[in-house]
Amino acid sequence: MGLIVQKFGGSSVANAERVMNVARIVTDTYKQGNDVVVVVSAQGDTTDDLIAKGREINPKGSKREMDMLMSAGEQISISLLAMAIESLGFHAVSLLGWQAGFETSSVYGAARIKRVNADRIKTEIGQRKIVVVAGFQGLNRYDDITTFGRGGSDTSAVAIAAAINADRCQIFTDVEGVYTADPRKIPNAVKLEEITYDEMLELATLGAQVLNNRSVEMAKKYNVEMEVLSSLVRKPGTIVKEAVKVEKMLISGVAKDTNVSRISVIGVADEPGIAFKMFSRLAAKNINVDIILQSVGRDQTKDISFTVARDSCEEAVAIIKQFMDSVSGSEIVVDNTVAKVSIVGAGMESHAGVAAKMFEALYSAAVNIQMIATSEIKISVLIEESYADKAVAAIHGAFFD
Amino acid sequence: MGLIVQKFGGSSVANAERVMNVARIVTDTYKQGNDVVVVVSAQGDTTDDLIAKGREINPKGSKREMDMLMSAGEQISISLLAMAIESLGFHAVSLLGWQAGFETSSVYGAARIKRVNADRIKTEIGQRKIVVVAGFQGLNRYDDITTFGRGGSDTSAVAIAAAINADRCQIFTDVEGVYTADPRKIPNAVKLEEITYDEMLELATLGAQVLNNRSVEMAKKYNVEMEVLSSLVRKPGTIVKEAVKVEKMLISGVAKDTNVSRISVIGVADEPGIAFKMFSRLAAKNINVDIILQSVGRDQTKDISFTVARDSCEEAVAIIKQFMDSVSGSEIVVDNTVAKVSIVGAGMESHAGVAAKMFEALYSAAVNIQMIATSEIKISVLIEESYADKAVAAIHGAFFD
Repeated sequence: MGLIVQKFGGSSVANAERVMNVARIVTDTYKQGNDVVVVVSAQGDTTDDLIAKGREINPKGSKREMDMLMSAGEQISISLLAMAIESLGFHAVSLLGWQAGFETSSVYGAARIKRVNADRIKTEIGQRKIVVVAGFQGLNRYDDITTFGRGGSDTSAVAIAAAINADRCQIFTDVEGVYTADPRKIPNAVKLEEITYDEMLELATLGAQVLNNRSVEMAKKYNVEMEVLSSLVRKPGTIVKEAVKVEKMLISGVAKDTNVSRISVIGVADEPGIAFKMFSRLAAKNINVDIILQSVGRDQTKDISFTVARDSCEEAVAIIKQFMDSVSGSEIVVDNTVAKVSIVGAGMESHAGVAAKMFEALYSAAVNIQMIATSEIKISVLIEESYADKAVAAIHGAFFD
Repeated sequence: MGLIVQKFGGSSVANAERVMNVARIVTDTYKQGNDVVVVVSAQGDTTDDLIAKGREINPKGSKREMDMLMSAGEQISISLLAMAIESLGFHAVSLLGWQAGFETSSVYGAARIKRVNADRIKTEIGQRKIVVVAGFQGLNRYDDITTFGRGGSDTSAVAIAAAINADRCQIFTDVEGVYTADPRKIPNAVKLEEITYDEMLELATLGAQVLNNRSVEMAKKYNVEMEVLSSLVRKPGTIVKEAVKVEKMLISGVAKDTNVSRISVIGVADEPGIAFKMFSRLAAKNINVDIILQSVGRDQTKDISFTVARDSCEEAVAIIKQFMDSVSGSEIVVDNTVAKVSIVGAGMESHAGVAAKMFEALYSAAVNIQMIATSEIKISVLIEESYADKAVAAIHGAFFD
């Protein structure tokens, strides 16, 4: 007996059969005595198809009109799901983002949720209806439709859960939960029963791609208990919450990220502020720098190495070249064949030897470590990309087998 | 220099190329110094496709959800058209029904426009934007999306023209205007320069199918000057307005309607009120009775013949049978091979001999007249269906050749 928010992605509602499957999950939850609010994305490739339609007519169409165009996708999926629920004999009502009270910033294509006025949702729940809400969209102060960017439906679901004080926000995906490693690569990867928000955030950042980061941040902020579970298999998934069981595992997962490039700037003049200025220029262009390593070079110079996402590498190099021209001659070396392998675990805060165990596993597997970065709940190493899967397997074996 | 509302149907925006064609018509109008509000329907078969998607999941889906589903169609077409206009270097803004201020009754699938709050449209026009509005849709008092039924986009356009006091409401179609007869059938049919609202209403009712009837009624009520013209050929069309030129034609058109059945009830007891009771039962089921003929029968009985739309004939007969059982034994004869041929013209009010000329034409063509009905601006005859085209040609020849 509770108040549950359930979110289903585009592939879960891709065709009539899958929409009916979702309707059965939702109505089963309702039949167990729960009030249910469902958040859905657009069906399958609808959003991409709509974008293609728009680009065909105008490759530089305004973002406002692109948001108007794209948001039609969820309008279709919510009404179809509501009708599917009706066909099972239950009362349902679909609500667009603005009807569900999503007030957003005015940035089209990447709007932030400012507030969810959940009056309408609450009224519909009060009438014992199953409420089906369009994810990914809201309304800005100009009464114009905005979208939240990719993965925005997760955020919609958490925002509603926070606004109506739901007991749980279930995110249905095509995996059964959060695993200690990618189960397609590591056969003995273990599904976690629970994980903390911080661990989940580190894993999401590291490319585990189970949950949208903004949604986890929002869940943490408003203390919304999330569950990641499968829309195809009826099994408990992984709970994401603040505090987890005391006897929890030392580390909760091993992840690899191959969207990484290493940029080395060799022979930078050893003057104060050079590194700061370089990184602030990158930041100004929204390029995130991850692991940074600075070493003493020859002749009063130093070498600075750092990693960026591979898809922003080219832009980063251009910015640095421009900067270097104005400072001093130096050489820029780029390596696009690196990968970042990380372990995440709130347990490592209080346990010594986690890093040592990880490095030992890599040494045994003959994997050379290029760079290291650590936080309280994460250790990342940069290695050659071709060794990445081997490294993940070795580390996972050391901690979980 | 004026304020023009332009409406384009689904076939006019069916693909990217046609959307660009519409964008050129709209921007050409704008370049001539006009402010322009464009109303569009959903692209091509989009509405039918969406309905099919809904029916696949739930053949009895609620009308509220069907409206939510269908209205996504115009959302796609308005944003595409706005982007097409942008690509030609003009500022455009697309507005959904509710953003354009359409307040409607709460009947889903067949909502009536109660009011158009045109503040937003006026503000956007004030910023010299081309405003693209979704036809066919509005918002009811529950903040839920409603649709107006087929042909509703014409009504949307006229309602906006009335609300913003536009100089003209142009309805773009695939024909070049209103003709004196169907130009595919009568080679020397003439395109009318002007026609009155009443004539247009009679012609629409008679199956000319150029304009949606509700839109003409609304145009008449608010004195909105309409123009029917082609989206493919750049030519003046037919103006629909209250008063037309003095030297206008005697009749404005010949139309045939084959969606007609004649029902004859033979041997009804000659008591007062029988006919009234029968027709009121039909009216209660929303069956419109058109031409009525009552004749004296044998033995204190009478015969009543009348026409109904052929697609409601079966239901009408069932209702009459039920009624006859409770009154007196009589015979019901149905003829589904009839057609109604009509001439329409405000000129006939003041000109004698119009009916005579029509009947003479039919006589010369050896067409037998079964029933006759007249109004101030219309004369209709019921004839055998197989003679319909011949009859139209003969009448058209008599008045226009």
